[in-house]
Amino acid sequence: MAQSHDALTGYLEEHKDDAQQILEQLCRQPSIAAQNVGIQEMSTLVEHLLQDAGFSTQRLLVEGAPPAIYGELRGRSPYTLLLYNHYDVQPAEPLELWHSPAFEPTVRAGKLYARGVADNKGEIAARLAAIHALRATTGELPITLRWIIEGEEEIGSPHFEGIAARYADLLRADGCLWEGAGFDMNDNPTLCLGTKGLLYVQLDVQGIAIDAHSGTAAILPSAAWRLVQALATLRTPEGRVRIPGFYDAVRPLSEAQKAAIAQQTDMDEQMMERYQITQFVSSQRGAALREYGATMPTCNLAGLVSGYTGEGTKTVLPAKAMAKIDFRLVPDQDPHDILEKLRSHLKAEGYADIQVSVFGAAEPVVTPIEDAFAQRIAAIAQSYEGRAPSITPILGGTLPLLGPLRRHVGLPGLSAPGNPSYWDSGAHAPNEHIRISDLHRAVRFNCHMFQALG
Amino acid sequence: MAQSHDALTGYLEEHKDDAQQILEQLCRQPSIAAQNVGIQEMSTLVEHLLQDAGFSTQRLLVEGAPPAIYGELRGRSPYTLLLYNHYDVQPAEPLELWHSPAFEPTVRAGKLYARGVADNKGEIAARLAAIHALRATTGELPITLRWIIEGEEEIGSPHFEGIAARYADLLRADGCLWEGAGFDMNDNPTLCLGTKGLLYVQLDVQGIAIDAHSGTAAILPSAAWRLVQALATLRTPEGRVRIPGFYDAVRPLSEAQKAAIAQQTDMDEQMMERYQITQFVSSQRGAALREYGATMPTCNLAGLVSGYTGEGTKTVLPAKAMAKIDFRLVPDQDPHDILEKLRSHLKAEGYADIQVSVFGAAEPVVTPIEDAFAQRIAAIAQSYEGRAPSITPILGGTLPLLGPLRRHVGLPGLSAPGNPSYWDSGAHAPNEHIRISDLHRAVRFNCHMFQALG
Repeated sequence: MAQSHDALTGYLEEHKDDAQQILEQLCRQPSIAAQNVGIQEMSTLVEHLLQDAGFSTQRLLVEGAPPAIYGELRGRSPYTLLLYNHYDVQPAEPLELWHSPAFEPTVRAGKLYARGVADNKGEIAARLAAIHALRATTGELPITLRWIIEGEEEIGSPHFEGIAARYADLLRADGCLWEGAGFDMNDNPTLCLGTKGLLYVQLDVQGIAIDAHSGTAAILPSAAWRLVQALATLRTPEGRVRIPGFYDAVRPLSEAQKAAIAQQTDMDEQMMERYQITQFVSSQRGAALREYGATMPTCNLAGLVSGYTGEGTKTVLPAKAMAKIDFRLVPDQDPHDILEKLRSHLKAEGYADIQVSVFGAAEPVVTPIEDAFAQRIAAIAQSYEGRAPSITPILGGTLPLLGPLRRHVGLPGLSAPGNPSYWDSGAHAPNEHIRISDLHRAVRFNCHMFQALG
Repeated sequence: MAQSHDALTGYLEEHKDDAQQILEQLCRQPSIAAQNVGIQEMSTLVEHLLQDAGFSTQRLLVEGAPPAIYGELRGRSPYTLLLYNHYDVQPAEPLELWHSPAFEPTVRAGKLYARGVADNKGEIAARLAAIHALRATTGELPITLRWIIEGEEEIGSPHFEGIAARYADLLRADGCLWEGAGFDMNDNPTLCLGTKGLLYVQLDVQGIAIDAHSGTAAILPSAAWRLVQALATLRTPEGRVRIPGFYDAVRPLSEAQKAAIAQQTDMDEQMMERYQITQFVSSQRGAALREYGATMPTCNLAGLVSGYTGEGTKTVLPAKAMAKIDFRLVPDQDPHDILEKLRSHLKAEGYADIQVSVFGAAEPVVTPIEDAFAQRIAAIAQSYEGRAPSITPILGGTLPLLGPLRRHVGLPGLSAPGNPSYWDSGAHAPNEHIRISDLHRAVRFNCHMFQALG
């Protein structure tokens, strides 16, 4: 081991630029799921890159979805790790805000800029480079890897249910590393053990058939007012959701989860600076605030529109009004149950005429801190960095693929710090970037982790 | 009189197309106040047309406004009538919905299509043609006419306060005929004696400095929810305004006004068909509904926007939210008083942070049915048509110029049926049009009215 470790160190030094070359190759190929741009080309490129790294591959196909690329690479130990990534990216718009073209990877001041470089082509490159290094220096991997890379994560993985159901046998493993976590503001490695669920609905109110002059407002029904009044029944001004039964299934955090939250880096000041606020919703701070954020399901107004929204005045009584709401759900809330409760509430409050359309439903998925796989990855992160990783028991965001993965395959999972993104990478935003030093660090960490699991 | 009347009838028959020729000339010249298109050219054309009809003219100028065109034409009698019109029109957008170009007057099936043809270039042409006819057949007008034609009515007459103050002496008369009324569904001539006032405000809520991922919704303040909750305090679900003191100054309708409303043509079925509704806000019908509409001030949500309003999903916590509200006010509500009450209400409800911007303020102006000038015009309309005109004591809409005119000049006014528009003319909409037969009728009515006043 000592010798191979030295050999590995030398190899990584000598091939320092390999990960960046792979990453730039990945970033030069646009792969925008929402716009169906470059998706087929990208799936072919990913399959070739997995084959180059020694994987036997296949394309996982379900009706209506671009191929998910699957690869398996047998190692010395029967211990099997499932890796999850996605090869699609967010749209690059607004293009005019990019300082260099979104699909021309560009280095400036030690940072690499491109759409998808942080989310999550950087992790694909870091994992590939680590696998190349281990195979080159030790002949074979210490463990068996299975790897699924889908092409629809950025549009909510609408076909992952079908993929996980049809190909469950291929996806079985001792544990799964999801799309990865990075490093926090204090450069601590982070582990993320869960994500909130999501129910995304659109409410549409049709009042009159066509817009009217607002001189008729005394006698014609108003869609805009009806929507406002219906929305006002959903939440108290303090933010508590008024839908009966909404909180019934909420499971409190465990003591271990609370302890992990208490040890996270305090980001209050940075958040207050970034969003220019003087206090948070709950008036809490520090660990209490983070605990509140992890525990509370939300009813967020993501969009709202009716009538005239341009400059100046237009005296119109709008024919219709629309709101988009995303509910973020915590264990053990179920999005379908919450949808039924929402519909019942609107009906009971006299708003049965409001049309409720569902645009997304994903359950919350959380791996307990006590889980053996989670404990093992945490110990590996600690042994590598010499300090305990920062553990997030549940993120505010959602990975819709985790629900199907848990239901059809059932293995424990988490996000490990093998992802070369950092807190300011600007995923989904213009000028998305990584620090190139983080890419090298992620390659080294992945090597260490694969070896330590062996 | 008999001889000149016969001469007039002959002249009108012989010059039947004059009004249409003038009207087409007016409509070919775009004059869009909101876009500052063609306004100067239009003011010059209008001044020439008034001079051609015998008026001595001048340009009424105040800082920042296009010239209002003023003309005076002395007649046999010292009885003086002030005519009001505007030479600007609404924007023609959406252009793709026009069946012929908006500024190319086009005749189809007895109707003349063009932007502004009904609102209100048609009335300018009808008044001009009547004046030409009377002068040609009787040598001079029976009464003295003063005429002001402004260029900003469609953007709320923002400089009419200054014009009425500076040029009050030019505008004095025995009565004023506002921009005119037309004919109702039963072809009854209509008189309109007043308009509601207006307070137009925009409410802006700033929550966080920039949009955030909605995964943070548990702890960051929401501008969208704050706006919805603030709006919900303004009105009950039944439509009653909750701003303290809002109804204090509301003056009940007089018995004469109620009687006039009772005699108006019932438009309930047409309204229900047009707007595809099964009942009105108040569950009332007929005269009771019309009385309700005339009595009730309104708080209308003209616009509402926050966050993502496109197709599909975006999980965003919006940084800001905006609403546009128009209050239609009845006598004796004062827009400035209502504004103060709105601000006090928001402050009392805990929403002092919401920015209130004023985009328009106009007082309600109503001429009593018993007014001598109103009675005289009503009698003239009846003598011409052989039946009582339909009288609207107060319209749901607003003419912002009427307040300044009343305060600085003080003469009684109303809208008379000398306007060649009808209930389906589509003012402000694509394919605005008039029936050409109504144009001829309006010319004849204006001749009759000017003579009868002499």
